[in-house]
Amino acid sequence: METTKFTLSEKEMPTSWYNVQADLPQPLPPLLHPGTHEPTVLPPSLFASELIKQESSTERFIEIPEELQQILHLWRPTPLYRAHRLEKALDTPAKIFYKYEGVSPVGSHKLNTAIVQAYYARQDGIKRLATETGAGQWGSALAMGCSFIGLECKVYMVRVSYNQKPYRRILMETFGATCIPSPSSDTQAGRDILSTDPDSSGSLGMAISEAVEDAMNRDDTYYALGSVLNHVLMHQTLIGLEVKKQIEKTGNYPDILVGCVGGGSNFAGTLLPFIPDKLKGREIQIIAVEPEACPTLTKGPDLYDFGDVAGLTPLMKMFTLGHTFVPPPVHAGGLRYHGMAPIICHLRRLGLIEARAEHQRSIFQSAEQFARAEGIVPAPEPAHAIKVIIDEALKCKESGETKTILLALSGHGHFDLASYDAYLSNKLTDYEYPHEKVEEALAKVPKV
Amino acid sequence: METTKFTLSEKEMPTSWYNVQADLPQPLPPLLHPGTHEPTVLPPSLFASELIKQESSTERFIEIPEELQQILHLWRPTPLYRAHRLEKALDTPAKIFYKYEGVSPVGSHKLNTAIVQAYYARQDGIKRLATETGAGQWGSALAMGCSFIGLECKVYMVRVSYNQKPYRRILMETFGATCIPSPSSDTQAGRDILSTDPDSSGSLGMAISEAVEDAMNRDDTYYALGSVLNHVLMHQTLIGLEVKKQIEKTGNYPDILVGCVGGGSNFAGTLLPFIPDKLKGREIQIIAVEPEACPTLTKGPDLYDFGDVAGLTPLMKMFTLGHTFVPPPVHAGGLRYHGMAPIICHLRRLGLIEARAEHQRSIFQSAEQFARAEGIVPAPEPAHAIKVIIDEALKCKESGETKTILLALSGHGHFDLASYDAYLSNKLTDYEYPHEKVEEALAKVPKV
Repeated sequence: METTKFTLSEKEMPTSWYNVQADLPQPLPPLLHPGTHEPTVLPPSLFASELIKQESSTERFIEIPEELQQILHLWRPTPLYRAHRLEKALDTPAKIFYKYEGVSPVGSHKLNTAIVQAYYARQDGIKRLATETGAGQWGSALAMGCSFIGLECKVYMVRVSYNQKPYRRILMETFGATCIPSPSSDTQAGRDILSTDPDSSGSLGMAISEAVEDAMNRDDTYYALGSVLNHVLMHQTLIGLEVKKQIEKTGNYPDILVGCVGGGSNFAGTLLPFIPDKLKGREIQIIAVEPEACPTLTKGPDLYDFGDVAGLTPLMKMFTLGHTFVPPPVHAGGLRYHGMAPIICHLRRLGLIEARAEHQRSIFQSAEQFARAEGIVPAPEPAHAIKVIIDEALKCKESGETKTILLALSGHGHFDLASYDAYLSNKLTDYEYPHEKVEEALAKVPKV
Repeated sequence: METTKFTLSEKEMPTSWYNVQADLPQPLPPLLHPGTHEPTVLPPSLFASELIKQESSTERFIEIPEELQQILHLWRPTPLYRAHRLEKALDTPAKIFYKYEGVSPVGSHKLNTAIVQAYYARQDGIKRLATETGAGQWGSALAMGCSFIGLECKVYMVRVSYNQKPYRRILMETFGATCIPSPSSDTQAGRDILSTDPDSSGSLGMAISEAVEDAMNRDDTYYALGSVLNHVLMHQTLIGLEVKKQIEKTGNYPDILVGCVGGGSNFAGTLLPFIPDKLKGREIQIIAVEPEACPTLTKGPDLYDFGDVAGLTPLMKMFTLGHTFVPPPVHAGGLRYHGMAPIICHLRRLGLIEARAEHQRSIFQSAEQFARAEGIVPAPEPAHAIKVIIDEALKCKESGETKTILLALSGHGHFDLASYDAYLSNKLTDYEYPHEKVEEALAKVPKV
């Protein structure tokens, strides 16, 4: 019988994170201060001292504290699957593997960094974390992380999602967090927006501004971000480090690695541990997949831009559609971000990864095919990557090549079934690249 | 570092189901024909020939076909966890373990039998399965099972759940099943009910009658049941067989085993492999937990009764509240059944297991405590068992005993978060034992 699931024991879980900054052929461009445009670091009033250190560290491996390892063991190592049934359905000679992060208690990879951020905040004597969330994956991960570490947690949830996805809000509350719709009257930023637009449905950029302000105004509070930053991506490298051990056991090595990108943390966590091999000349094609409605890597220019709408964050060098750009309402809420993790952008700049954009109707079609073959109903975000691995597997069918294809499957779609309903009942719209809105937003990017 | 998760490799998954009928000190009372009251077997027009054989088999182990083993490997073996964090929160010397079936793609143990029933139906040349579902756990499991085996699937879903739990319906549709609210106009049984009560919110008993009628009227269709029957319970014994291997690796043996009971399949699947040990004199306390609002095992008399409202099924000897009894609307939809698996009832009759009933506010309180300690948000059904393991762990704290407590955690609560919302916002009602309604229903049980 062919093996389906490649598991590792707790003892085989990596005990250090991998820091790609040790191996980059050129260093990352620095962060710039939002006011002075001078090189800067993350603000110590908002981030744990250890995380600020990690953000610019060039140590290759950074050890995971034992208490965190013990918590990670609840769901890690996560399984690597061979998609035998999907291969058969596609009639492809390709070997398809997927690394599944949906086994985490909150259903996605986000928990890998949430508990870490809570842990280092507590180490600094902090009692409370503030954050924003769009679709709610990150908010529920941080709620659980704070519950485990013993911190309070306040989540500003984009109002439209707050109303559409009550289950995510309830999940946060079950873990003891406070979750309110953003824009809210709890912050000046929120009050300003509400005074001009009382019915504002909110945006991720607005919610970030509220959470940052909340943390700036309270000595007992840090701010937490679920993607984009270097330390966040590093916490996710457990994914790729495990994959390397697992795929080695199968006797294969990925010819193609595919992941979806919003902020880029799941994709980075999976691919970064393969970068040293690639730099040594090993052939591996690495593909980032994003929505056609928010095509940061495929269509955005490479600029210094803010991480939030209000311009409170440091400027980051990245492919961007402009920090004031509000993407069309595609169902993959986690991919609706105007920018991209600086590390991902740097790898793209260096030609180490490539990018593709997909429309949402085709990604749901691929997700449905995947679910019927493999049983797992994927979240709309990784469904983007599934579209591409199916395309690649079908190319192999034509060419007869036996390529090994690796999919980063970041989580399940249990809280996203309304979007499947829209797909199944033929109510899903594809959004063309909104290039006029992007031009407008790009005009507001500061000149550096 | 203490081990948290005890996994097994695919190769360690049992390759046979355990059939407790080989070891029962007294045989099970026979099924009786609904009309003649003579001993009978399951109707061959509704069930696969192999399942009818399994239902009354006294072979100790029945081999699992290789194709099914391969599918089971997608999520099996499931992990056994040591609840270190819950133990610490309770400050108990007890060792708490839980066997978690929520890692299955549909989030519960139901899939363990769903794919098997689909497989044996296909073996008989059948093209389609009909079934009922209450909360939707069973319906979504059978939908996936049919998708994997290549059968059509029609699910009659209790109307009130159909309206309250759209996500479960969408999940079934994603797997290609047809799911309609019951009572429906697709069957005579449904039309009869609708003609007298057009706004009927439905019941499990009504939905069973519709699914059975559907299967009786079509040559290409069998009926599938998600619990109660002997073969269904046997398919679930993989759970307990795996637990025995896993807990042995920890150097422990359960002093107490606790599971929730509706039809009884998750509880039975976990405990049955321990029965031979118990019969040989090994001390193990086995506790079934049910809702105070539907206390079949703790308050029902031991009678022959029907499995459905309309009286279409064979009569089964079981503890029952009467086949026409409609339990109060507690949130644990999976435990709202008037009867109980004959095997579970037989073990109770023989004094091998005991039973307790719990109120829903206290079970959600326990579930919340469990979620905050262990990260997993349990479904309302296993939350009943969690209440009891916490009670037992606190008794150990008082007595100083280091008992080993094993929890059967049948699934997660991702689709049940509305009930957590009701609990968290203090809107949850406890229902007293509705003894007058039970008396009424018991008066309608046929005299055998």
